[in-house]
This record gives sequence, C-alpha cells and structure tokens, in this order.
Amino acid sequence: MQQIADIKYAAAVLQWDQETYLPEKGNAARARQLATLSETAHRLFSDDALGKLLQTLQERQDLDEKEKSNTSLTLEDYNKQKKYTGAFVRSLSEAVSAAFHAWIEARRQNDFTVFEPALTHLTELKKQESDILGYEGHPYNAHLKEYEKSTDTGQLDALFDGLQAPLKNLIGQLVNRDTDNSFLRFHYPKDKQWEYSLYLIKKLGFDTAAGRQDVSEHPFTTSFSARDVRITTRLDEHDLANMLWSCIHETGHALYEQGLPDDDYGLPSGEYASLSIHESQSRLWENCIGRSHHFWEHELPVLKQYFPQQLNQVDMHRFVRSINKVSPSLIRTEADELTYHFHVMIRYTIEKELLGGQLPVKEIPARWNELYKEHLDIQVPDHRQGCLQDVHWSHGSFGYFPTYSLGSLYAAQFWAQLKKDTPGVQDDIASGSLTGVHRWLQEKVFAHGRLLTSDALSRKITGEPLNTRFFMDYVKEKYGIES
Amino acid sequence: MQQIADIKYAAAVLQWDQETYLPEKGNAARARQLATLSETAHRLFSDDALGKLLQTLQERQDLDEKEKSNTSLTLEDYNKQKKYTGAFVRSLSEAVSAAFHAWIEARRQNDFTVFEPALTHLTELKKQESDILGYEGHPYNAHLKEYEKSTDTGQLDALFDGLQAPLKNLIGQLVNRDTDNSFLRFHYPKDKQWEYSLYLIKKLGFDTAAGRQDVSEHPFTTSFSARDVRITTRLDEHDLANMLWSCIHETGHALYEQGLPDDDYGLPSGEYASLSIHESQSRLWENCIGRSHHFWEHELPVLKQYFPQQLNQVDMHRFVRSINKVSPSLIRTEADELTYHFHVMIRYTIEKELLGGQLPVKEIPARWNELYKEHLDIQVPDHRQGCLQDVHWSHGSFGYFPTYSLGSLYAAQFWAQLKKDTPGVQDDIASGSLTGVHRWLQEKVFAHGRLLTSDALSRKITGEPLNTRFFMDYVKEKYGIES
Repeated sequence: MQQIADIKYAAAVLQWDQETYLPEKGNAARARQLATLSETAHRLFSDDALGKLLQTLQERQDLDEKEKSNTSLTLEDYNKQKKYTGAFVRSLSEAVSAAFHAWIEARRQNDFTVFEPALTHLTELKKQESDILGYEGHPYNAHLKEYEKSTDTGQLDALFDGLQAPLKNLIGQLVNRDTDNSFLRFHYPKDKQWEYSLYLIKKLGFDTAAGRQDVSEHPFTTSFSARDVRITTRLDEHDLANMLWSCIHETGHALYEQGLPDDDYGLPSGEYASLSIHESQSRLWENCIGRSHHFWEHELPVLKQYFPQQLNQVDMHRFVRSINKVSPSLIRTEADELTYHFHVMIRYTIEKELLGGQLPVKEIPARWNELYKEHLDIQVPDHRQGCLQDVHWSHGSFGYFPTYSLGSLYAAQFWAQLKKDTPGVQDDIASGSLTGVHRWLQEKVFAHGRLLTSDALSRKITGEPLNTRFFMDYVKEKYGIES
Repeated sequence: MQQIADIKYAAAVLQWDQETYLPEKGNAARARQLATLSETAHRLFSDDALGKLLQTLQERQDLDEKEKSNTSLTLEDYNKQKKYTGAFVRSLSEAVSAAFHAWIEARRQNDFTVFEPALTHLTELKKQESDILGYEGHPYNAHLKEYEKSTDTGQLDALFDGLQAPLKNLIGQLVNRDTDNSFLRFHYPKDKQWEYSLYLIKKLGFDTAAGRQDVSEHPFTTSFSARDVRITTRLDEHDLANMLWSCIHETGHALYEQGLPDDDYGLPSGEYASLSIHESQSRLWENCIGRSHHFWEHELPVLKQYFPQQLNQVDMHRFVRSINKVSPSLIRTEADELTYHFHVMIRYTIEKELLGGQLPVKEIPARWNELYKEHLDIQVPDHRQGCLQDVHWSHGSFGYFPTYSLGSLYAAQFWAQLKKDTPGVQDDIASGSLTGVHRWLQEKVFAHGRLLTSDALSRKITGEPLNTRFFMDYVKEKYGIES
C-alpha cells in the first residue's frame, strides 16, 4: 500500500507542477506521464496477489480494531479498482489533462466553445464510469459516493430543498444592510500581499517545514505525505479578500493533511475521512474563525501594519461587517456564507442533468446563466465569471461541489461542539492563541484518518448526524437575527 | 519505451522539486517515492516480454538504419537493466536521497563528518555496482562507461597526463597578468540579477514556453521531454560571474535538450549522445561564445543597462580580460578554462582511489586538500569550499566529472569546425545574432540523438576523434600566445 501511495503521490507532484510551474509546451508529455502513473497505480492496486493477501487478512482473527478497519477499507478500494480496466484509467487521465488545458485556454479567451469538445469527451467518460462503478437511483450517485460515501441525491435534494427557503429569507433581510466595504478593492501591491499571506498561514498553524505555498490560477491544496503539504493562493492587486480567504481556506485543508497520522502513510488510517470532512476544515477556518470578530481583534492590527494606508480608516466594526457582507455575486469562492449554498446548488443541478443525459455540454452556459438569474437574481456578464470560473469540471470532478455545502454545514456543527468542549476558546482566539482549536481538531478529527465515515465521525463528535440547524443557528447569531 | 520514459521523467520531476522547492520534512517520503519510481522503471525495463520483443525486432530484416540503431541500443540498455535486482535499484535510490540531504546539511554546517556515513554507504553500493555491471581493468570503468561509453581509465590517464605540462606552462605565463576584475564582486541586487538572467537565457535561445528557470543550491539542467526543460541558477549578491556563467552553461545544456527530436520521446534517437557531448554544449556556450569579446560586443551594453552604476567604469577590454582571468581557485564551477582541468583531474583521482579501495571515505578531505596543494598550489580553508562543493558524489555520480574535461575538449574541437563551416559567425555573434550557431548545432549535434557515440559523432562532425590540439590552439589564440 505504501508503494501504491508512492505512485499516487508522485502523480500528485506532477499535477501540482502542472498547476504552478509547467511551461505551456510541456502539456502533452505531462499528460502522457500522468496517464502512465495512473495506469501503474491501478495495475498495482488491482493485482490479484494483493486481493488474495487482503482476503487472507480479512479472515484473520488476531487483528485489532484499527487493523480490521484498514483491511476492510483497503479491500473495498481494491474491489473498486478491479472494476476498471487499465485502458479506461489511462484514457480518463488523458482526458482530464486535455480538459484542464482547454479550460485554462478557454478562460484566457473567455470562450466556452474552446472548452466544450474536451469537456464533452470527459463527460462521456464520466457517464461510462457511472456504469463501471455501478449505482442505485441516479447515475450521479456513482460519482457523489467517490467524494462522500455517506450521501446520495435523495438526501442532497432534500437537504438543499430544506435550506432554500430559510436562506432566501435571511438573505432578503440582510442584503440591504449598508456596508461600505470599498477598502477591500483598494490597491494592495502583490509583494506585500505575498509577504502578509506567509505571515497569515504560519499564524494559523501551517508548518512551513512540512509544506509550502505557491501561486496558481485556482487556489488548491495537495499533499505528498503529511510532511509535505502544498497550498496555493491567488494574488489580485485590487482584491484583498481574494488572498485573505483563499489563504485561510487552504490552510484549513492543509492543517488537516499535516495532522493526519504520518506513520500510517498509504493506509486508510493515514488518509482524510471524506471530501465533506476536508471541506469542513477549510470552512471552519475560513468562516467560523476567519470571519469572526474574535479572530480580527488580534489580527486586524497586524494586517494594518502591512497595509497602513489602505486600512487607516477601517475600524473593527466596519472590517467585520465588510467581510461578512451578504450580497448575491458571481464567483463562488468569493461568496458570502449564505449565498454560497446557491452557487453549490446550481452546480449540483447542472451536474445531475449532465450525467443524467438531460443537458448536453454545449448548453451549460445557457443553463448556468438561467439558474443564476433564478436563484441569485443576477445576470452573468461573461463565461469567465460564469461557468468557466471553477477548475473542477476540467478535472472530471463531478460530484465534488456538494461536499462544499456539506462541509460548511459540518463546519458549523463541529464549531458548536468545539466551543462547548473548549470554554473560552473565542477569548483565546481574540488574544491570538489558536492552540485550543488545534488541539480539539487534532484529537476529534485528524486522528481518525479515514477509519470513520463522515456520518460516523459526526455522531462520534457531536452525538448526532448532520443537522442543518447548527448552520442556521450559527449564521443567525452572526447576523444578530432572532431565531 | 514511452511508458518507461514516463516513469523516469516523473522521477526527474520529483528530483527537480527536491532540489528547488521541497520542504525539509518532506525528505523521507520523497526518498521512498523516488525509490518506488526507480524500482517501477526497472521492473518495466527488465521485463522478459520486452526482452523477447527486442530480440524479435533485432532479427527483422526490414528495419531502416534508425530503427536498427534504436533497437540495438535499447537491447543494450535492456541487458544492462537485467543485471540489476529491483532491491538493489531501490536501495541505491534510497541511498542517493539520504546522501543528498546529508550533503545539504553538511554544507550548511561546513562539516564533512555529517556527510561521511551516507557517502560511505553509497560508495559501498557503487562498488557493488561495479561488479554488477562488470568491467575490464579498473572497477571505475564500470561507472565511467555509464556516462561516456567511448572512454576508459587508460585513455583518460593518458589524456590528463598529456594535458598537465602544457597547461601548467600556460598557466605559469598567464597567472601574473594584471587584471582588475574587482567590479565582478560589487553589489548586484538579486532581483536585478534574476531579471537579467531571464533576459540572458532568452537571448541565448532558451525557449521559455518549453522550459523554465528556477533557483537552487547547485545549478543544474533536467528535462521531462524536449518541450519541458528546467534549468536552475544561483544568485549571489556579491558575485556577478556566478549567475552569468551558470546561466550560460545551463542554457547550453538546455538548448541541446530542447533541440532533441521530440517525436522520438523514449527512444535512443530522442536522447542525448553522452554526458561528454552534453558538456560540450554547455562549455561551448559558456567558454567559446560566452567568454569571447565577440559576444560581449553586443551584450555588454545590455548588461550595463541592468547595472549602470556597477559597470560604468568597465570597458570591453577590461571586461573580457576580467572574465578570462587565469588564477588558481577553490571552486570548480568558477574556475578559468585552464585551471578547470585540474579541478576535474583531482576529482577523477579521488574517485578512482575510492572505487579502487585505496581511499576510505573519511580520508577524502585530507586527500582533496593535498591534491589542491599539489596541482594548484592553494590551501583549502574549509570543506564547503573544498570537498563539499559539488553535488555529484551525493548523487552517487562517480565517473561523471571526467566528462567535464572531455566536454571542454570536444567543445573546442566542435567550435573550430563550426567556425570553419560558418564563415562570419563571430561577426554575426558580435552583431547579436546567434542563428548560425543554433543552426549548426541543431544539424550537426542535436539531430542525431544517441544514435552516434561521442567518438563517432566527433569523427562525423570534425573528421577525427577527440584531439586535445583543438583545445590548446583555442586557448593559445584566446590568450594571444604563439604556438
């Protein structure tokens, strides 16, 4: 399993390089190299001899609980690998590389048709993958379960349906609150932003000896072991918030990766629980902590040292209101915590229609714009700010977006529990100490690796399954609205 | 063969990252990942089925000359791979990673004993490798032939013996020439140096869409295909020459890699001929062109635009004399063209003694210092400027250094032919055009890939085997000394 992990992590290094440093003419060879690594990992992981070893282990009586879980989860992974042919794995990897580069180019040209052929091919492969993996109900479930085993379209439809009305109601109450957040769009030089970003990620607990930050088109986190975790950020001279929240968000992911049991490299117990739980970590830091007045009580003075001119008129009250301003907008990663879920719902709707065969790829832009009008009442001016904004589809990651909403909901639920378990934690944050948060997350979340599902983890930590009540209570408290 | 190349190039990406961006705690996992990739490439390349295919191809009558050469060279490589066990390949890769990190740390502490245990282990493995590969005469030959098939210790001993007296004679005549090159040690801000270095590599013909430059401890070139060639440089604020000649040298390597037939990715015809020929390219650019007054006639005014204050007192005459100043020194990569060969000879002597079993690793520093006193009459003040200066031994690259001298000698021989074949090329260079050089190298050297040995290439291009006369004539002309 360590050797399979070595190959997968090697592929992750090549992908990281692809999104940070790869020269443009290197694309074709890189696509082939990634395809060969995927095929190699698949060959090792679907080897009959490995299957027999895992069966033998499974039947042994002398394993402890952790060994049992590691064995059965690995066997589950093995059985999934056996469903694929090497040729399919290779063609999927090649299609992803092609789609990624087409997406970059389409964004550059602000033209969806540049992306369309590659995305059409990739979507066809993902439909085939639904059949390869098998599913109950909607073919989308096959992919959804790759990212979040505990859920399906039935649960998600109900969850989003239940969120819509109360969220729209809240947004209606908050959208006209007058907040002058224009200072976020002042000129913030890139080198100063970079310098501050390095301060910020370290302040949050990112271990720079066990990882690094670079710059990329779309901020992301990847890891090659718990001791080598890479995050990226994006610097826009006229948008301070972009850097701030991408750094906090990705550091949330990174702290999870750096906190995973390194001795269990290659085993389920050394891996993250699910993408929803991963996202709960980034959203907990980004929102519950990073948009709280407690955090900025200690950190605003520091931020002002980096940008004294831009921020000299900004007091705590205005700063915190500004970073929590509710306003329907075009870009998911920049959305406030309430409208955010509509961005996710829209993508979820489109993905289901794509994989269900109701929506051809070429109609994505029209459908996208229609849904933004319907749910957020905004006009999408161009594709770069519309359906080309996210990298995920170019990676073939259908089923990934819902974990963003699930993650935000888990974050609120964990945050409520964290506060209950750690009296005074918000005062500590206000005085600059994040130790209580780190300790709680390490013990409650990181230490379990992938041995518990999202659902089991939620029950273990909070005593109940995912419940949207925690999120609604959290935002109502934040915005001072009576329940 | 393409898939084997994919795995090898993937390993090269991980190594590139190791020397440029890897966070320190990532070392252990990276070493394991590299070992697994080496083992995987070896498994694919020593597969019996591949051997049979190659045998079948070898016996076919309908192959053209290129197909025949590709087949027999690949079969030769295959037979070499068969000599290794997977376990040996893995342990060698792990020993190299360990030695590389020990070397970094030893340099930091300026303490050879920090490097000694890892180097001792690696040297033992390299001795075993001599037996695995087999050799005639000295066990060193097994390694030498990995880098330069056309040579052996007998030929090298004779070559170095023949060079010593005339070189010492020349050095004696030139060492007291008065040249004030103090301006090379003025303060040159790193950002300005970086900016100029990017101008310089592009000026020399480096295609930045098919490669990139980064910063590393020890400048190097690596490639992941002919369309993705990475070079690195080192920036020292008090040493302009360091950046200048590392950029020109590495660009020489890079132009070769970018000029190899990309369609033959994974085949001998798509690979470089040998390390000697590779080095002939870097040395031709570094010395024959990069230290010529022709080149700087066009480029000194540009350099002065970047560093007007530091260079305002420096005219062409002084600049060219300064960059060709002959003076015994400590650091190989900064040596003039004459004393350079003694740096190589010293390493060659030590390597032979190490692999022959006469010299224990722990006695390297004493032996090193003794040889520097004997050949260059200088005292080595510390290990960082002594036996810890080069990365090669940490990579287990014994037998590599001699290719530096061979490369310099081939460079002079090719340069003489290039000038003969391309009338007016030096005037063109003086007017800023390098097209003639690029065209000649592409046709005469790059296009052949690995289909010709160094020796065959030399005969084909210049009509004779390696002959030190060309180098001696070249330096005598440069320094205005009658033959």
